[in-house]
Amino acid sequence: MKKGKFITFEGPDGSGKTTVSTAVTEKLQNEGYTVRYTREPGGSEIAEEIRGIILDPKNTDMDARTEALLYAAARRQHLVDKVIPCLEEGISVISDRFVDSSLAYQGYARHIGAEDVMSINKFAIEGYMPDKTIYLDVTPEEGLKRISDRAYLDRLDQESLEFHQAVYQGYRQITGTFRNRIIVVNANRPLEEVIHDAYLLVKGIIDG
Amino acid sequence: MKKGKFITFEGPDGSGKTTVSTAVTEKLQNEGYTVRYTREPGGSEIAEEIRGIILDPKNTDMDARTEALLYAAARRQHLVDKVIPCLEEGISVISDRFVDSSLAYQGYARHIGAEDVMSINKFAIEGYMPDKTIYLDVTPEEGLKRISDRAYLDRLDQESLEFHQAVYQGYRQITGTFRNRIIVVNANRPLEEVIHDAYLLVKGIIDG
Repeated sequence: MKKGKFITFEGPDGSGKTTVSTAVTEKLQNEGYTVRYTREPGGSEIAEEIRGIILDPKNTDMDARTEALLYAAARRQHLVDKVIPCLEEGISVISDRFVDSSLAYQGYARHIGAEDVMSINKFAIEGYMPDKTIYLDVTPEEGLKRISDRAYLDRLDQESLEFHQAVYQGYRQITGTFRNRIIVVNANRPLEEVIHDAYLLVKGIIDG
Repeated sequence: MKKGKFITFEGPDGSGKTTVSTAVTEKLQNEGYTVRYTREPGGSEIAEEIRGIILDPKNTDMDARTEALLYAAARRQHLVDKVIPCLEEGISVISDRFVDSSLAYQGYARHIGAEDVMSINKFAIEGYMPDKTIYLDVTPEEGLKRISDRAYLDRLDQESLEFHQAVYQGYRQITGTFRNRIIVVNANRPLEEVIHDAYLLVKGIIDG
């Protein structure tokens, strides 16, 4: 049986990942594609509990390596509970964030180093790398402008412009390193245009 | 300034680790040694929260790799919050369990492999390996007999005899691999005798 395609959406905060990836999933489902949207921790109870610790605004003393290990743990459990069962059944999965987020946020912005962060993520994903990744490229200024309208800011949203710039620079390194896997989409545009382009790309990947 | 010594106690469930390591710490403190007892997660609030997820009896669906990553995360935070500050101040630390527990439980008994489990733990501890480790060697049968008297059994205590035997076999491998670091103490004896021997060993290590 043919396995489903594993497609991830990545980008800095405020790049529109969630809006775009859910809209793309819906459009494809309306056309009859068997594709599922997911988002870490995404309904995996254990992964939700782990995510709760990471994002709790009171946990300001969290060490960067603790954070990276917790993300890897939540990723592992979500992958086992939600992603792998779909892929094995031939259902394609669109995931809002995955390994590249850890490389950008913990590896680059928290200065642990992308190689070390990749090593614990390899332990977590055991070879389940995405077939393709859509990177929504938004400037840190534009991204921050968009998230500043949100009512609730979690521990990561509250980080400084400097941190968000480091995330952005990290993603630029990652898109260079994984140029065969990652497709860059200009996300400094109206959301309908971004959705349209991402939709066509994902459709092509699933059909391919 | 001279750094404190980092000494860990290891052994299967029911080997007497907690009783022995706290008794040894007290004896040394009464003699004027500056030594501190700790136990993961040991009062590090974030590490306690992580441990809560691991040991929650309802989390029976937890994947073995998720568990290993969570232990590494809790270990990291506890190390940063509690262990490193003491060692840097010249205070010796006696820790009830550390990396070897993950090698035995997740690496061997859960069949992930000791090398992979060591790799995420290296990420977590960044070179802070124990100076010496006291291994309390108890047979799985004797260990299980002792824990069966406890009123509350957490998720790991509830595992089968087969699991505890695999932990025991794992520890035997580990004591072989790290023979320069790990000192084996026969713990199938009355606790006072075990405490006496462990006390002399630790005293020697701290004075050494």
